Amino acid sequence: MADDPLTRSWWGWGHVEQALPDDECAGFGALLPGLADRPRPVPAPADLVLPPVRVRPPAALADRFSDTPHDRAAHTYGKAYRDVVRALAGDLRAAPDLVARPLSEADVAAVLDWAGDAGVAVIPYGGGSSVVGGVEYRGDRPSVSLDLTALDRVLEVDPVSRAARVQAGALGPVLEEQLRPHGYTLRHFPQSFEFSTVGGWLATRAGGHYATLHTHIDDFVESLRVVTPVGVSESWRLPGSGAGPSPDRMFLGSEGTLGVITEAWLRVQDRPAHKASAAVTFTDFAAALDAVRAIAQSGLHPVNCRLLDPGEALFSGAGDGTVSVLVLGFESAGHPVDAQLKSTVDLALAHGGRVRENSGAAVESWRAAFLRMPYVRDGLARMSGVVETFETATTWDRVPDLVEAVRTEVGAAVREVCGVPGLLNCRFTHVYPDGAAPYFTVVAPGKPGAELSMWDEIKAAAIEVLHRHRATITHHHAVGRDHRPGYDRQRPDPFALALRAAKAALDPHGVLNPGVLLD
Amino acid sequence: MADDPLTRSWWGWGHVEQALPDDECAGFGALLPGLADRPRPVPAPADLVLPPVRVRPPAALADRFSDTPHDRAAHTYGKAYRDVVRALAGDLRAAPDLVARPLSEADVAAVLDWAGDAGVAVIPYGGGSSVVGGVEYRGDRPSVSLDLTALDRVLEVDPVSRAARVQAGALGPVLEEQLRPHGYTLRHFPQSFEFSTVGGWLATRAGGHYATLHTHIDDFVESLRVVTPVGVSESWRLPGSGAGPSPDRMFLGSEGTLGVITEAWLRVQDRPAHKASAAVTFTDFAAALDAVRAIAQSGLHPVNCRLLDPGEALFSGAGDGTVSVLVLGFESAGHPVDAQLKSTVDLALAHGGRVRENSGAAVESWRAAFLRMPYVRDGLARMSGVVETFETATTWDRVPDLVEAVRTEVGAAVREVCGVPGLLNCRFTHVYPDGAAPYFTVVAPGKPGAELSMWDEIKAAAIEVLHRHRATITHHHAVGRDHRPGYDRQRPDPFALALRAAKAALDPHGVLNPGVLLD
Repeated sequence: MADDPLTRSWWGWGHVEQALPDDECAGFGALLPGLADRPRPVPAPADLVLPPVRVRPPAALADRFSDTPHDRAAHTYGKAYRDVVRALAGDLRAAPDLVARPLSEADVAAVLDWAGDAGVAVIPYGGGSSVVGGVEYRGDRPSVSLDLTALDRVLEVDPVSRAARVQAGALGPVLEEQLRPHGYTLRHFPQSFEFSTVGGWLATRAGGHYATLHTHIDDFVESLRVVTPVGVSESWRLPGSGAGPSPDRMFLGSEGTLGVITEAWLRVQDRPAHKASAAVTFTDFAAALDAVRAIAQSGLHPVNCRLLDPGEALFSGAGDGTVSVLVLGFESAGHPVDAQLKSTVDLALAHGGRVRENSGAAVESWRAAFLRMPYVRDGLARMSGVVETFETATTWDRVPDLVEAVRTEVGAAVREVCGVPGLLNCRFTHVYPDGAAPYFTVVAPGKPGAELSMWDEIKAAAIEVLHRHRATITHHHAVGRDHRPGYDRQRPDPFALALRAAKAALDPHGVLNPGVLLD
Repeated sequence: MADDPLTRSWWGWGHVEQALPDDECAGFGALLPGLADRPRPVPAPADLVLPPVRVRPPAALADRFSDTPHDRAAHTYGKAYRDVVRALAGDLRAAPDLVARPLSEADVAAVLDWAGDAGVAVIPYGGGSSVVGGVEYRGDRPSVSLDLTALDRVLEVDPVSRAARVQAGALGPVLEEQLRPHGYTLRHFPQSFEFSTVGGWLATRAGGHYATLHTHIDDFVESLRVVTPVGVSESWRLPGSGAGPSPDRMFLGSEGTLGVITEAWLRVQDRPAHKASAAVTFTDFAAALDAVRAIAQSGLHPVNCRLLDPGEALFSGAGDGTVSVLVLGFESAGHPVDAQLKSTVDLALAHGGRVRENSGAAVESWRAAFLRMPYVRDGLARMSGVVETFETATTWDRVPDLVEAVRTEVGAAVREVCGVPGLLNCRFTHVYPDGAAPYFTVVAPGKPGAELSMWDEIKAAAIEVLHRHRATITHHHAVGRDHRPGYDRQRPDPFALALRAAKAALDPHGVLNPGVLLD
């Protein structure tokens, strides 16, 4: 945004100004023995070594392209732990040759045409917040990072149908700022909200604000406009249609492999006028899970229904480390929600929960910690910490065993790899009548220079556990390149055939985000 | 069902025993001038002229196949008006050569293998209730109707996740009967409930019981098992997953063109213990529409929210023909719903509605008429009536103009074709925050022998109106063969390419339901 006084970090999460200062990083040493003595310095962009540029932009589009070291460095990786570690180490071998910033849909189509002819890989790039290698090209061809953030306008608002036509490059706050004067909000607030775009949400089936019912961005899509190498796909605005397989559902989750999403009609909402929240504590995590299941199956549809295990509650300041904390919330634009909250809290109490005094503070401290977490992650990474998350979803019948297996087996991997137990916390972010999405955080001391291989070993153990329990490789972080080992095993073979055929039909030169979803 | 004492009709809706008797058919003459004097006789199966059988079943599967005239006749058509008219006329040129009744998934795979080698078209057949030509083969190859109703078992119930593994050939009542002992219900009650199957619902994205929120069967799907000519596709049971485009969403709505759905894990529910309903009348249809929109955008999620225009209310006994009737309902297994109903009724009253005395009777008479309607349709067809429905969905901003255009333009077509205004009623069956699904009924006198061309002319006018207003060709009746003209125009071209490529990958011999969705 033009009026944004903050500077985006090229190597880590979010804004440079919000990164943890060195002394705060160093302070982690007291909390987690085994970390480095002082934080690894952040390389200066001027000192970066980038591979040579192998391709020239087409003359007609030259002013849409950049090959400055800063642009190339900032578009090399997403924002996974392994991305941060590599950036801090100055490893930018995967840098794109060029960064393209289309100013119109016609520019997008022109870039794809040129790339198809020139054999250049095109990596669609929104906010660059992928944590699964979704924006990092790993092949041998020249590559272009297609940065869509200049296409960030709300083009139309339909107040009758309560929908908005939005360009895909709008970052979360840029979108909400344009909806606000109309009295609307999308209320899609992933943890990456500030640093991810509408198009990125759509392409990766992002998970958002709602713990139940409308958990993914998919649920707010009315229609999509997608530039593919063989033409523009535009679905009709339809509130519901049974005419064949949904065209939109093919592009949702396609992660830039089938086309570049340029616009969407999205269902927006009146801003909520009624809100109510509560926090309930449990001494028994299994009882807390039963409570959450009862709530998820009640048809009460809380907006917030997040369960933090004792470690996660402590980590985020919502608990003292002895109890699990369930954060509940309702909201509505039109009607009071206190009765629904009461019914929901009653269900929690019936399963052994206790209403936490000063619930509001717990909710707030969880929320603040939630948004601060990626900066803490970066600070820990600078201290040679191994710090990353993974999330999944499975049916309720498998949830307790899965959580136990992750604690046991991933915990063993952490001990084996890092030499100490470290932290292995669990929260539940989204719940369904038939299952839930557990989300795990690992924090442990790493060995400088070996952090990546250490994390890869831990993650490999995690992937094995998820697969054995038939839990998805990702509930809302997408597949990218890093999740291919799990994704390829869970995807039905005939569907892989169909997807490959669809890809070949839409992207005959195979230029779109090669290596993601498919080889 | 083995203990079912009723006989399925080969030519018309449902059970022979529930068809309207001749004198009741004749009585329509007094209500709708211009009908025939007496009902056309129903041909005796023994008198039917069927085309010769051109193909022999494979020896190993011979006992799964039938070529009896009754089986072939009963599997020739779906149950659209044009199907009934042709059956009554004894026109069975489209009869399949054979009817196959697999007893296992292996049988399904074996039939597909054989058909691929032999170049035989395979038409998956559930309850046979298609109203869009979905089960009628119109090509030159030999064809087999693949009747899946022997695969009708609930194989597994997971009470923890509240889900059931169901074979696709289960008719609605057969499914519910097996869920009942577990205390569960799917609560998917399309008008065709008695005569349509789980697999048919899934393959056509059927619309069901819920007027809001979970309007289509899609919303109850946890995973699918599909036999394709290149292998079995089985998705994992996942409550939510962001791993690539949803495999299930490709098969949902594929209408038998990509594979044969044999099993699904479906989300089931506790049987509702709390129910509340009301009927509200409006003298102004536009005000009623505004009320429905306000309710759809309120987040209150009524289970029933069906608006009947004055003609439709009269036709179904829910009104006196002077007012529109809005039928509202809530239900829950766990908590009282009266407050939600009250908030909803209040919204309706704020838009000029009046609570109807004896609401329960209005709701009940609507429901009874709803289930009786297809039999009435058949009786009218025997009296040479032109009687059919069409449904659509569009965004709220377009709804009033669309309804007006249908009334004007389709009304003009009815007058032009039938010489009298006839009836052209409208109801709204499913509503969304961003739009709604209007459903139209046409009843007019036809000329014996010319009914089909008369209806085709009216339907062509309807398709034009829907297309011009960018309203979907179908909200929940599927595409089949009859809706191809509208579907082909609304489907994005790149998606058509992708779908065609997926079809070629999964069905390389092109044997699966040729002519549906794709050429």
